[in-house]
Amino acid sequence: MRISQDQIAALNAVKLEEQAAAYTHLAGQLEREGFDPGQLVRKVREFQVAVPSWALGAGGTRFGRFSQPGEPGSLEHKMEDVGLLHSLSGAAGAISLHIPWDIPQDFAAIRQLAASLGLVFDAVNSNTFQDPKGGRASYRYGSLSATDAAARRQAVEHNIEVIRIGEKLGSKSLTVWLADGANFPGQTNFQQALAHTTESLQEVYAAMPEAWKLFIEYKPYEPNFYSTVIPDWGTSLMLAEACGPRAYTLVDLGHHLPNTNIEQIVATLMWKGRLGGFHFNDSKYGDDDLTVGSIKPYALFLIFSELVYGLMNNPQNPVPAWMIDASHNIKDPLEDLLQSLEAIREAYAKALLVDRRALAAAQQAHDPAGCQELLQHAFRTDVRPLLRQARLEAGAALRPLETYRILEVRRELTRERGAGSVATGL
Amino acid sequence: MRISQDQIAALNAVKLEEQAAAYTHLAGQLEREGFDPGQLVRKVREFQVAVPSWALGAGGTRFGRFSQPGEPGSLEHKMEDVGLLHSLSGAAGAISLHIPWDIPQDFAAIRQLAASLGLVFDAVNSNTFQDPKGGRASYRYGSLSATDAAARRQAVEHNIEVIRIGEKLGSKSLTVWLADGANFPGQTNFQQALAHTTESLQEVYAAMPEAWKLFIEYKPYEPNFYSTVIPDWGTSLMLAEACGPRAYTLVDLGHHLPNTNIEQIVATLMWKGRLGGFHFNDSKYGDDDLTVGSIKPYALFLIFSELVYGLMNNPQNPVPAWMIDASHNIKDPLEDLLQSLEAIREAYAKALLVDRRALAAAQQAHDPAGCQELLQHAFRTDVRPLLRQARLEAGAALRPLETYRILEVRRELTRERGAGSVATGL
Amino acid sequence: MRISQDQIAALNAVKLEEQAAAYTHLAGQLEREGFDPGQLVRKVREFQVAVPSWALGAGGTRFGRFSQPGEPGSLEHKMEDVGLLHSLSGAAGAISLHIPWDIPQDFAAIRQLAASLGLVFDAVNSNTFQDPKGGRASYRYGSLSATDAAARRQAVEHNIEVIRIGEKLGSKSLTVWLADGANFPGQTNFQQALAHTTESLQEVYAAMPEAWKLFIEYKPYEPNFYSTVIPDWGTSLMLAEACGPRAYTLVDLGHHLPNTNIEQIVATLMWKGRLGGFHFNDSKYGDDDLTVGSIKPYALFLIFSELVYGLMNNPQNPVPAWMIDASHNIKDPLEDLLQSLEAIREAYAKALLVDRRALAAAQQAHDPAGCQELLQHAFRTDVRPLLRQARLEAGAALRPLETYRILEVRRELTRERGAGSVATGL
Amino acid sequence: MRISQDQIAALNAVKLEEQAAAYTHLAGQLEREGFDPGQLVRKVREFQVAVPSWALGAGGTRFGRFSQPGEPGSLEHKMEDVGLLHSLSGAAGAISLHIPWDIPQDFAAIRQLAASLGLVFDAVNSNTFQDPKGGRASYRYGSLSATDAAARRQAVEHNIEVIRIGEKLGSKSLTVWLADGANFPGQTNFQQALAHTTESLQEVYAAMPEAWKLFIEYKPYEPNFYSTVIPDWGTSLMLAEACGPRAYTLVDLGHHLPNTNIEQIVATLMWKGRLGGFHFNDSKYGDDDLTVGSIKPYALFLIFSELVYGLMNNPQNPVPAWMIDASHNIKDPLEDLLQSLEAIREAYAKALLVDRRALAAAQQAHDPAGCQELLQHAFRTDVRPLLRQARLEAGAALRPLETYRILEVRRELTRERGAGSVATGL
Repeated sequence: MRISQDQIAALNAVKLEEQAAAYTHLAGQLEREGFDPGQLVRKVREFQVAVPSWALGAGGTRFGRFSQPGEPGSLEHKMEDVGLLHSLSGAAGAISLHIPWDIPQDFAAIRQLAASLGLVFDAVNSNTFQDPKGGRASYRYGSLSATDAAARRQAVEHNIEVIRIGEKLGSKSLTVWLADGANFPGQTNFQQALAHTTESLQEVYAAMPEAWKLFIEYKPYEPNFYSTVIPDWGTSLMLAEACGPRAYTLVDLGHHLPNTNIEQIVATLMWKGRLGGFHFNDSKYGDDDLTVGSIKPYALFLIFSELVYGLMNNPQNPVPAWMIDASHNIKDPLEDLLQSLEAIREAYAKALLVDRRALAAAQQAHDPAGCQELLQHAFRTDVRPLLRQARLEAGAALRPLETYRILEVRRELTRERGAGSVATGL
Repeated sequence: MRISQDQIAALNAVKLEEQAAAYTHLAGQLEREGFDPGQLVRKVREFQVAVPSWALGAGGTRFGRFSQPGEPGSLEHKMEDVGLLHSLSGAAGAISLHIPWDIPQDFAAIRQLAASLGLVFDAVNSNTFQDPKGGRASYRYGSLSATDAAARRQAVEHNIEVIRIGEKLGSKSLTVWLADGANFPGQTNFQQALAHTTESLQEVYAAMPEAWKLFIEYKPYEPNFYSTVIPDWGTSLMLAEACGPRAYTLVDLGHHLPNTNIEQIVATLMWKGRLGGFHFNDSKYGDDDLTVGSIKPYALFLIFSELVYGLMNNPQNPVPAWMIDASHNIKDPLEDLLQSLEAIREAYAKALLVDRRALAAAQQAHDPAGCQELLQHAFRTDVRPLLRQARLEAGAALRPLETYRILEVRRELTRERGAGSVATGL
Repeated sequence: MRISQDQIAALNAVKLEEQAAAYTHLAGQLEREGFDPGQLVRKVREFQVAVPSWALGAGGTRFGRFSQPGEPGSLEHKMEDVGLLHSLSGAAGAISLHIPWDIPQDFAAIRQLAASLGLVFDAVNSNTFQDPKGGRASYRYGSLSATDAAARRQAVEHNIEVIRIGEKLGSKSLTVWLADGANFPGQTNFQQALAHTTESLQEVYAAMPEAWKLFIEYKPYEPNFYSTVIPDWGTSLMLAEACGPRAYTLVDLGHHLPNTNIEQIVATLMWKGRLGGFHFNDSKYGDDDLTVGSIKPYALFLIFSELVYGLMNNPQNPVPAWMIDASHNIKDPLEDLLQSLEAIREAYAKALLVDRRALAAAQQAHDPAGCQELLQHAFRTDVRPLLRQARLEAGAALRPLETYRILEVRRELTRERGAGSVATGL
Repeated sequence: MRISQDQIAALNAVKLEEQAAAYTHLAGQLEREGFDPGQLVRKVREFQVAVPSWALGAGGTRFGRFSQPGEPGSLEHKMEDVGLLHSLSGAAGAISLHIPWDIPQDFAAIRQLAASLGLVFDAVNSNTFQDPKGGRASYRYGSLSATDAAARRQAVEHNIEVIRIGEKLGSKSLTVWLADGANFPGQTNFQQALAHTTESLQEVYAAMPEAWKLFIEYKPYEPNFYSTVIPDWGTSLMLAEACGPRAYTLVDLGHHLPNTNIEQIVATLMWKGRLGGFHFNDSKYGDDDLTVGSIKPYALFLIFSELVYGLMNNPQNPVPAWMIDASHNIKDPLEDLLQSLEAIREAYAKALLVDRRALAAAQQAHDPAGCQELLQHAFRTDVRPLLRQARLEAGAALRPLETYRILEVRRELTRERGAGSVATGL
């Protein structure tokens, strides 16, 4: 299923007047504050987020999974889904593949399909948390960090294979998330595991093409519940530095201990020029993988405020690869992703509204109340007319979720694919 | 120092046109959504929050305290400060006294002063976490829960004395916060401490006038770091039920373990008709006592959403006593409180904007994405014009913090009171 | 496979001398402290823990599962496994069934099998977190708390069916764990869900035979990640009180927010006479379901110290139903359970060694250092000779894990059942 | 007050027989396990821990402080207290001074006093979390990280002054703990604060004598409640590396977010050769500063297991500077410290009992149950006879706390110093 520009335009038409009024009001306010609304709209419009191929079906927990009708049963279906999201939101112009779940059979055809949907291939993702079919070694006790040399070898080679696949797709980066760790004290030798991980990553790094980047993800726990081999940003940065200049830390919002100040981690990594990738989601307890912005939207805004600052002030840091990494346990995955895309752009837009000059002055003047006013003013501003304007100009839907429902997309997908179609993924 | 209506009106005048335009725009939007903007303004205007007498000076930590010039050195000064806050915000029409820090000398004069400032006396607060000067017994090892009968007796009598003082002021409720607990495993007998606490509170309850309410606060830790005698809402409710129908639980936002779902606690307590008091603040790690809404404004909104629901649906629950309980370690306390007052009313106003009928329908239809849209729509709406309108109609400042700064209130207070004046409190 | 008394006796024989020396030394020390070692041995020997039928195969996470060879493929196999644990440890004299995973086909045969293995049937467990095959209603949006009356009806009837099955087995209690809750703010109406849950539980309670108890489990999150309908002990107790005198709270060690003081909850519930069941496991982050005592053995001891106190001082509280509830993601499940059984009895034995009279005196004397010494003295005592003596006298293995390995139990089970046999469960 | 060797010997005499029997039994067991008990005793005996000069009086919280009679009112008194601890425990052979609270007046006399008490001067500690009397600049908004150049300058110079004082005492290291941070989002510029901190520390580092080490402490929050400038080990390590080879990370057990795996941090830092200092305490919620080992003794053991491993395998890492950093809010500080010293040596001794060769083999064999058995065997062993033997051989008390009480040390100190003597410190 594809949604045509005409379908969107027809549904937008009904709301054009309302949007014009709302946008005019907001633009006037922003202009009085010294902003160029048109430029803000352009920036928002250009902000594109990758959708991972494994998050288009229903997610689950260890207690089970309630499936979703019309799930994408093939890579082509998944790309089609991302294409739908992009048509509606204008914000999902990239897809991030998981190997081995989504190895293309015909690369040329897949690249052509992507192009026809307006999508590029973002970072490719390896998987060493599940045993490969027919693999010689098991990852039960670790992969890149394993004491077993055969498991390490197999994991390194798998990552290199993922790079090769990514090359054929036009990807430019590899994301490594290691589930390696221990469930019990004493189970692993921390130092040895770190040494093994370093060497393994160095091998993978060496196999990357010149233009590629390596993103090293960290996570404190789950699926191991005593320790993980890369628990925090400090370990990830240490490993990245041991690899070389094109190795970076990847921040996933859900991968932190309770109460962590994530925005400070972002600032530190950008200062070091080492923030390479970003996985969006939201959470209340652990790595809950909920809809972006559904629990702590102000924290998301503060994180974006540091990201925007870094993009302005840290030329040594590349523009991070943005991706949503959530699990859709009870919502329709496409609805969930539309809400996430909206929340991301909202936080980004609000972060653009922070008066940086005034903030620096208030910081210098030791005026914490003033600093707070500046941040909260940006956050309290209702930027939805601006987000809608960006979509309107991009030919996307003024109101993506409403449009999705009016067009009965899920029903159509279920008709096409069947109620029992099941996506690979978590 | 007092701020006259004329001073405020003069400063408001400059911004009247801007406000009119902003309010008209918002009111139009709200009307289209089916709301009566005038009624919303009235509700916001009526929402009054008590300021505690101990939070008008600089706060501190165990590592020290940086003082604030012009702190109120007497109860009269403190009331004057709350009067200033009320003049500016129209939202701080009550003061909550701490005994023994703020025992009036001349009750008639103090009541007259309060009336002249437009203030009423909210809940009175006892203190058994510090030893009284010249007390027979020490609270070092507990007060209402102590193994030492003399300490319990003294603590009960202190609470009764606080009630007597409150009666003379026109207060109608007593808040008991117990610091009692243990720093080490084994230090206290949990069951015995609970039994003692029950009996002590029953005695205090019995000494209250008919029209009074008892608020029982809970807190998981600090200043005791292993256990406290009333660690959670479950214990508080159990104690309230053991006292009688006019005993209630008091929720302080900072008194929870990491990741607690506070809005659910609010809902449960209102369902039971036992939510009596509410202490506002914000926090990231523990009982940080930061400015309301400065860290997790969406959580505050969700809490208010349950409060508003309860106010509509739980006639068995009285309107809770609202109070700010924050510590002003580096901000000017009056600026801090103005920001808190704004954040509270903002969350309240947004909670009023939740379409309850549509939400109930979406819940019934098993539409979590739709439920989220409804809540987020209310939260994303910029209600500041509405808050300003409520102040305008009440004769308060359109922009309280700006006005406070333009009028150089702190400079004037420092001139009047001296830079070295120090407030009692934490 | 069964292990004969002779096999165990033969392996014990080699260690008898060593055990005699160690026990004599410890017994002498305990006698000097005023204890009767023989009575301690008896108490330990009598302490029996149930093993749940769903925890005999490999556990997993949402990221996958690494299977274990020789898993029990039928209820009979599961009982056989518990029988093996009981032969080796003398501590696992009960099994707790999960319905519908383990519905007996021939009740008489199953009861006979249990008797032959020395096992009784402990609490039966219902399952409303997964949809039943062919069920009319889905639990996707809740079961006992659901807005959908058909889902509630189905869940109530399922629980009643579980009671009927339990009756045929000789069980005397039903454990209800509700996964019901919400993933997103607004998704459910807290008050309505609580009202529905109350009514549903009351129906289930009413259907119990006179001699039965209802255990109501609480859990703050997972598999729902915003809220659960019974998040804490306070809610569980409230529901138990709404049901009647034979409804109790069940504490699972992993079902708490970070830093919760669980021993205090135990004390409070026993004081109220409402602690009905106990699920043992250990955890570092969330509901990690690790081997009992593998992470925080001192916390386990403190909890047992309150349990022992309650068993001595709270006649109104029944002896709780003890059960292990862990997930064996990488260890052999039977080895894991043997370690848990040892850790539980160790904590129990150490709790028996607390000098209660001296502790009460030190508490009364306000001597926290002395209280700590008393607890730590008990905890620091190496009670393993005592645990071994209890097993020796019961005809079980001096060293269960060693014996398990020497007898190559897993190899034999794999031979009998096949490497690919998979257990039902999580 | 001093305790003579004779006094101790006389009190030990009564328990010598009991100790001989207990030690013989334990030594026999250890020998059968392949250990040399005499060598273990020697290692324990050599393990010395510094006591900080600020922790000899009663501690407090922001809610107040209950004082302790007989607190040391001068540096000489504080040294006398540490001398008492050392006489009793044989484990407290060092003192760590806090500047400006404890600046010696007569350095030669102080060094002589130290020598006479058997004490050396460990790391010196600077203080930039409180404003110095008569200082030009305030640390209210930061010190080494401040935007205000004058505050930075003053803080750098203060640290250099502390080094100069330390040189005169024979110290060889400086510990920097920065309270710098922010209470509110936006208050500080993270990147700028980090840049300032780096430069400031580099200046301090450059001023150190050749043989000195710089210890950089980290802490996630308190007394700032939104962010701190050195929140975690990653930031500390980054700063240490920016300073030079003699800059190290200092780990304080209480300075971590909930659920942090501290032993892994220890392992990582020793692998990098950058673990310089260690502050012992225990906690349940935040930086509770409770008696070492009073809450999580198994976690302490696991940490020591990594420390012992590092001391054996990481020659690039110096022996860390060991110090107790606790707050004595309700216990007699000297009793509290005696309990901490015991808990530290207990954890150390148990860590020495881990069979490293067997553990490595079990790790290699993927035997997590076996790994756990090895660690737990060491932990479950009652090593108190070994600790007592180490004290006996050092001329210290078999039972330090009992001896302290029998000798009525606190009463004597109170007699000498007065009940109202108050120590400087927190």
